[in-house]
Amino acid sequence: MDTIETHGAGGGTQLVLEHASRETGTTMRFGLFLPPKTRGLLVFLSGLTCTEQNVLTKGHFQAAATACDLAVLCPDTSPRGEGVPDDDGWDFGQGAGFYLDATEEPWSAHFRMRSYLHEELLPAALERTGVDASRVGITGHSMGGHGALVLGLSEPDRYRSVSAFSPIASATRCPWGHKALGGYLGPDAGHWAAQDASLLLAKGYDRDLLVDQGLADGFLEEQLKPELLEEAGHHGLTLRRHPGYDHGYYFVASFLPEHVRWHAERLV
Amino acid sequence: MDTIETHGAGGGTQLVLEHASRETGTTMRFGLFLPPKTRGLLVFLSGLTCTEQNVLTKGHFQAAATACDLAVLCPDTSPRGEGVPDDDGWDFGQGAGFYLDATEEPWSAHFRMRSYLHEELLPAALERTGVDASRVGITGHSMGGHGALVLGLSEPDRYRSVSAFSPIASATRCPWGHKALGGYLGPDAGHWAAQDASLLLAKGYDRDLLVDQGLADGFLEEQLKPELLEEAGHHGLTLRRHPGYDHGYYFVASFLPEHVRWHAERLV
Repeated sequence: MDTIETHGAGGGTQLVLEHASRETGTTMRFGLFLPPKTRGLLVFLSGLTCTEQNVLTKGHFQAAATACDLAVLCPDTSPRGEGVPDDDGWDFGQGAGFYLDATEEPWSAHFRMRSYLHEELLPAALERTGVDASRVGITGHSMGGHGALVLGLSEPDRYRSVSAFSPIASATRCPWGHKALGGYLGPDAGHWAAQDASLLLAKGYDRDLLVDQGLADGFLEEQLKPELLEEAGHHGLTLRRHPGYDHGYYFVASFLPEHVRWHAERLV
Repeated sequence: MDTIETHGAGGGTQLVLEHASRETGTTMRFGLFLPPKTRGLLVFLSGLTCTEQNVLTKGHFQAAATACDLAVLCPDTSPRGEGVPDDDGWDFGQGAGFYLDATEEPWSAHFRMRSYLHEELLPAALERTGVDASRVGITGHSMGGHGALVLGLSEPDRYRSVSAFSPIASATRCPWGHKALGGYLGPDAGHWAAQDASLLLAKGYDRDLLVDQGLADGFLEEQLKPELLEEAGHHGLTLRRHPGYDHGYYFVASFLPEHVRWHAERLV
């Protein structure tokens, strides 16, 4: 594991690290924030077009994570580089891995973000931080909010706490999701349901969930559709709608410290 | 005045605005953060190569400014655009205005950042926010820390409170300063002293000053030299040295909320 960047930040140390992944067949870069004392780990999954850099530099979680004794793991959004297939659109291919394992050619060889996260990155981060595997939470933004909900709801033993910012609430019912799921998993929509946060939530979840959404978000009606999470009928869902906030990191940074504290209450 | 961007941020509204400046002869862009209630104004001057965007997206001052009822004004670092002279180096010309009024050709026509700030931008921001002119503080980073100290120390009636991050402590005694002052003001070093924070401080200042400096800052020894501020012998100077912090915005963001509160204690 190579250290690419080291910065003092918010009372701890913000690292950018790089390692060779057998799941993606590429070199993967990620952020790892280490507070002075570590009692839990929060995973932050980023949105379309992002690398690990966006939330590291604009999410401003570091001081809150130090105050709560949480390490924060910030993966990239897809495999990258020469030899990795890509798409002309910004919403598919590199920068848009959707946190799943692709089954369709040419994506299936490298686009294995779920297995990369669960089989390689998360175990490596737990080993590096010394955090107990039962004290892991997950959150994320947009495509990453979708990823946090889908991974968290489908694997409650892996993630004790789950929250999201502006998530794609139902990937089977929006254009971004149709493009991604059709491309990575094939046209048979019967294979898509396991990647839909609202459908997973409707199957039942025995913990609370925190979701924040800005009302000035230009993707709200066509792509995000948080009302579909509400329609899943989960009484533990807190969905907060914030007037004036858009889809960008000004919004994420405004509420991410609060999410860090919310996760810490459930993890440490 | 044109509104370029509007974002909900930290409980208030982050604006990016643009206006025609008679002092610089260009269109100037700047950030203005408006909290729900405004009782004072803090000016943040940015460093070499920055635009207003760096501190807006990475400085994370908004929530603290909301909590303290401070508007925050974030100017650009120079005039820009076609017809504005530039230099091949990143430390002189566009992006490197040093917050002074140039006297040398070809810079003197446009590089009038001090007059732009004091005659145009600050009055416009006070009018827009309704803040009383006696409740203005100034801070900044690197070249902007230099600017905050030089403007604040030389005009105590305009700036009631002054702080800085990693400032160029003595522009007459470092390579960045020699290049900038020589280029903008000419080779006669007798004209440079009014642009030197440490020399101004040695002449006397009757208030306290807060300066933060990272000890992992690669510019510390050759360019910044905070010890020269200490040698000025001002008892009100608090110079904090932070191990592990470098010159970037991870450092600024880690302590800027605290500076916001420090200024608010002196302004409102």
